Amino acid sequence: MQTNITSVSKELESQIQEEINFKTKPIGALGSLENIALQIGLIQNTLTPQIKQPTILVFAGDHGIAKTNKVSPYPQEVTQQMVLNFLNGGAAINVFCKQNNIDLKVIDAGVNADFEDHPLLSKVKISKGTQDYSLSKAMTKEQCELALGKGRQLAREIFNGGCNVIGFGEMGIGNTSAASLLMSYFTKTPIENCVGRGTGLNDEGLNTKIKTLKEVYNFHTNDIKTPIDALIAFGGFEIVMMCGAMLEAASLKMTLLIDGFIVTSALLAANSIAPNILDYCIFCHTSGEQGHKKMLQFLNAKPLLNIGMRLGEGTGCALAFPLIEASVNFLNNMATFKSANVSEA
Amino acid sequence: MQTNITSVSKELESQIQEEINFKTKPIGALGSLENIALQIGLIQNTLTPQIKQPTILVFAGDHGIAKTNKVSPYPQEVTQQMVLNFLNGGAAINVFCKQNNIDLKVIDAGVNADFEDHPLLSKVKISKGTQDYSLSKAMTKEQCELALGKGRQLAREIFNGGCNVIGFGEMGIGNTSAASLLMSYFTKTPIENCVGRGTGLNDEGLNTKIKTLKEVYNFHTNDIKTPIDALIAFGGFEIVMMCGAMLEAASLKMTLLIDGFIVTSALLAANSIAPNILDYCIFCHTSGEQGHKKMLQFLNAKPLLNIGMRLGEGTGCALAFPLIEASVNFLNNMATFKSANVSEA
Repeated sequence: MQTNITSVSKELESQIQEEINFKTKPIGALGSLENIALQIGLIQNTLTPQIKQPTILVFAGDHGIAKTNKVSPYPQEVTQQMVLNFLNGGAAINVFCKQNNIDLKVIDAGVNADFEDHPLLSKVKISKGTQDYSLSKAMTKEQCELALGKGRQLAREIFNGGCNVIGFGEMGIGNTSAASLLMSYFTKTPIENCVGRGTGLNDEGLNTKIKTLKEVYNFHTNDIKTPIDALIAFGGFEIVMMCGAMLEAASLKMTLLIDGFIVTSALLAANSIAPNILDYCIFCHTSGEQGHKKMLQFLNAKPLLNIGMRLGEGTGCALAFPLIEASVNFLNNMATFKSANVSEA
Repeated sequence: MQTNITSVSKELESQIQEEINFKTKPIGALGSLENIALQIGLIQNTLTPQIKQPTILVFAGDHGIAKTNKVSPYPQEVTQQMVLNFLNGGAAINVFCKQNNIDLKVIDAGVNADFEDHPLLSKVKISKGTQDYSLSKAMTKEQCELALGKGRQLAREIFNGGCNVIGFGEMGIGNTSAASLLMSYFTKTPIENCVGRGTGLNDEGLNTKIKTLKEVYNFHTNDIKTPIDALIAFGGFEIVMMCGAMLEAASLKMTLLIDGFIVTSALLAANSIAPNILDYCIFCHTSGEQGHKKMLQFLNAKPLLNIGMRLGEGTGCALAFPLIEASVNFLNNMATFKSANVSEA
């Protein structure tokens, strides 16, 4: 797969760092906000970075495995119901995007339902859910390429609309299972250490999920030679489309906001295709889903928030966003020791 | 000292928890935000809590010890200079309050300078800095009572103006030293484990600070029988006035936003006077100043942010505020499984 993601230019690094250090505060006293200010400055290659039309894309898709009731306590219909909830403004991601002035778009990547047209909804369904990967590959090679391409196109569209900060969210009953399988493949972690309780399995449910996914992993393992093979085997459409959108967004030098376990699984695939993508990623939160910490370690990522959330939808991005805004704002708007006539140490 | 802080009523606890659980999300999936929503619901004794006119008070004061150059790399004038920076809108706290729509007030509790009148400034100076506590008590009993009373009055004034969420910040060269001494007294931790680098001491400076404060602690220890005695011995005026404001705010059933090391030292005093105050406190961040983690453990507190900040000014409160807003917003505005027709687990 071709990508043209270049590493960020370090041309202005020392100048941006100087700007940060001359602000009226002890050196380093704004902690992670200083790192984010530097990172966004480098991404945009400027001393005065700007956040424009921040947008969160929530990718929704269904998973064949969900019909077996072996991986989630919720029925598959909940994906569709939650998409309608997003469109009606009633979900957590709606509330948090509204509060923090973030545009929201909902992407039907592969929900097992038909939707009416709606201004928030992009109807780019690849198919009504993936195949059950305990029986066959989740999707065909053609479907995978189509999903990656649609993802790229979506990112380009919102970039062309003026957005330069893009957050990723997802909805799909069963998608912690696909994410666990992808995690196992990309991080070389035994599958049992990648599987968690998802939306809230009890011990028995968790054991069934682990047993099921172990069999699935072994069933496919000999067929997987490339990152794309892994996406084809495990899905889902929302994860693959996100992966495509991430690759395009980074190639357009947008800032990427990374949410929790499932979004990070899409990034693991994107990172495996184009490692420079990490230059463009801000990790928004550490999910309560147990595998996420290990994914983050693998990517050497230190997220902004760690408040026990495990909801998905991009809620971690929406809630971390004011901290990202604050990073850019302090860089642009704080006085320096000199301008404020404050004595230095 | 008389206080009338009652524990929050638990009358609505199960009803609020039910509201939280019926929202369209797995139970517990919003992590700490669910705890905050419940806490503010209990404080306001309602299923529909509201945040009104959130305000951060930045208390500024000078410390006699700062003139010895044994505890801070910055000269004492920086307190005054930073107060002017606050009034001119150039400090980090200005940028973050503006971004997050928080009112800001600056309190001259005891800065060693005279200020012109300014709409943001409350001129309630007790004295031009505390006495050097390596030689005598930081303040007299009368000054301490005056400072506590002024703090109470300030909290009551902003409450009467319609505010129900009050954040605490501070500025004062040398005030990590007073905070360390108070921490040692209230948490029974050896002083050397309470002292950190403050605004950025090097190893040599840190050793001098520890040695100095060890002597100071031993010098006063026999005279301290009550929380008030500790405040009198160590100061500063900004810490004592904050303590008064905290006690009044909790007695008025406001929600208190607690910042970092110095603000928490004021809370240690308030908590020692009236332990019910903790019902009203939201801990906003874990400071990079090393003693803060131990203070938080002592108070059994789990802050929202942990991003290596150590700036003071109430910046932790200002940056955590959108998470607190989000807690109230999800409780008031998210759909329930029933209202959104979403199937339950």
